[in-house]
Amino acid sequence: MLSWSRSGIALAAMLLVSVATAAETTDPLPSWVDGPTKQTITTFVQEVTDEDGADYVAPADRIAVFDNDGTLWAEKPVYFQLLFAIDRVRALAPEHPEWKDKQPFKAAIEGDMKALAESGKEGLMELLKASHAGMSTQAFQKTVTEWLEDAKHPKSGRRYTEMVYQPMLELLEYLRANGFSTYIVSGGGIEFVRTFSEPVYGIPPTQVVGSSIKTKYEVIDGVPTLTRLPEMNFIDDKAGKPVGINQHIGKRPILAFGNSDGDYEMLEWTTAGEGPRIGLIVHHTDADREFAYDRDSHVGRLDKALDAAADKGWVVVDMKNDWTDVFTPEP
Amino acid sequence: MLSWSRSGIALAAMLLVSVATAAETTDPLPSWVDGPTKQTITTFVQEVTDEDGADYVAPADRIAVFDNDGTLWAEKPVYFQLLFAIDRVRALAPEHPEWKDKQPFKAAIEGDMKALAESGKEGLMELLKASHAGMSTQAFQKTVTEWLEDAKHPKSGRRYTEMVYQPMLELLEYLRANGFSTYIVSGGGIEFVRTFSEPVYGIPPTQVVGSSIKTKYEVIDGVPTLTRLPEMNFIDDKAGKPVGINQHIGKRPILAFGNSDGDYEMLEWTTAGEGPRIGLIVHHTDADREFAYDRDSHVGRLDKALDAAADKGWVVVDMKNDWTDVFTPEP
Repeated sequence: MLSWSRSGIALAAMLLVSVATAAETTDPLPSWVDGPTKQTITTFVQEVTDEDGADYVAPADRIAVFDNDGTLWAEKPVYFQLLFAIDRVRALAPEHPEWKDKQPFKAAIEGDMKALAESGKEGLMELLKASHAGMSTQAFQKTVTEWLEDAKHPKSGRRYTEMVYQPMLELLEYLRANGFSTYIVSGGGIEFVRTFSEPVYGIPPTQVVGSSIKTKYEVIDGVPTLTRLPEMNFIDDKAGKPVGINQHIGKRPILAFGNSDGDYEMLEWTTAGEGPRIGLIVHHTDADREFAYDRDSHVGRLDKALDAAADKGWVVVDMKNDWTDVFTPEP
Repeated sequence: MLSWSRSGIALAAMLLVSVATAAETTDPLPSWVDGPTKQTITTFVQEVTDEDGADYVAPADRIAVFDNDGTLWAEKPVYFQLLFAIDRVRALAPEHPEWKDKQPFKAAIEGDMKALAESGKEGLMELLKASHAGMSTQAFQKTVTEWLEDAKHPKSGRRYTEMVYQPMLELLEYLRANGFSTYIVSGGGIEFVRTFSEPVYGIPPTQVVGSSIKTKYEVIDGVPTLTRLPEMNFIDDKAGKPVGINQHIGKRPILAFGNSDGDYEMLEWTTAGEGPRIGLIVHHTDADREFAYDRDSHVGRLDKALDAAADKGWVVVDMKNDWTDVFTPEP
């Protein structure tokens, strides 16, 4: 029979407590429910980092790409960059009296989202030009930074940079701790996303891929300037995502995370390569804590990619059941 | 009076020897002549890395950009990528019997550089399309890699990847050891340079900026493929260099190194920013060890930037007098 002295029991109890504490503090994904989804992610990371394993991947090739809207931060009621464009048009309206009778500006100024939607692609392009072009890259960055500081999400009342998913922040950090390079590959504007990618996600500007308008280098009054032009340069969405990845990164990722049909080709390109690969999709299933939408949504429609997931082996992350927390805690 | 035991003297001598050896082995730029140019470079690096100094720059902002042709490797008699295009056209000629009577292909096949030059920009574009487009990115990379393995420089008989400047390799390594991120910003093709940037310069594909043709994502016989199209996407030269830097890096560099007027705007953009900045130019002054050319050269013309250097404070590196060695040693 095993006998314990009182001090021995106390010591054992202390050890157990410290083991439990260590286990708690070292879970790199505390906002992910312990279950098959989390297990699939951690197993993948363990396999590609195991130097003696068959699926080992050198750190230089551990490239992980993330969509932004709906994957790292929310995208409802509409893309936040569109809300920036609307606010920007309102701020500039006093200098443009003609806008109050002209669509899509009238709709933007009046907050008439229905009329704005009816203005179609051409209307959105007009809005984009008025809000995103005709200034230097530095001036644009300053405007976006100031907007992000002040503007509030219409439903939560929180800053947009607080509408980011806590489980995804943990995943980004966990991947980097395991030698991955983390990239954003967004349909949104590259210069827009770059203004907050480093403080919010720990992703430096150089690791952001996105849509862009053309810029022109010129010396204005003796000052070298990059001027943003009202002309599309590249649309980083759908089949554009693998193109953007190749252009910027020059390597095929081994992990891709998206949430909509706009990410289909990025997931397909990533997971079709040789060696270990993983594709993941955030499925917005949580109307209480966030929003619930997929096949019928105008923003972030998830239809074709949801159908393909089983066949392609992509992991569908169920927001309601796989995440213990959704947003980062209130400060 | 100080008295030394014999063992004490021996110990002191050993210490002096080891100090001298340490000083020798720790010179990070052994192929640079000790003099004002080298001093300017090392002083700049010391200042931006001195946490207590007025000119300290955080590692995340220590971005250094390097032109490739004529700055990191040689560019004479003509850009090496043009020699690749010519060799490629010759290799493909049996499949294109019509080329033997059609310019610029006839000139390429016959090695008639005068006729090739006379075919002008349109001719070069035809050559580019025939040699660089119409295949997948993977197939192109394989072709370039195989060419670099076999092809020899017409003057030296060495591989093109051995026509790199030893002092520049030391500088790249020295900068990285001091927390800099090193980038190539080349007028050459981004996919061409990426095939050798990592093994030759220690610069990963994601840190290469260059000219590009368009690519298209498509699934061919069930295989996701990026196909290279015969259409220019971006020309990363002259005023295109600051545009390419902004698009890829998203930050203004603090160090730029070029060798021709094609680098003028990159040097201007880099050195016009706030805080400590340095611009450097390789001046090809060494006909014995390499080539001597500047204002009148068709390839790598250095005229406007040479005139501006004094006024702008750019450092002109005199190859003949500032470098003890030019090329990397024969293996």
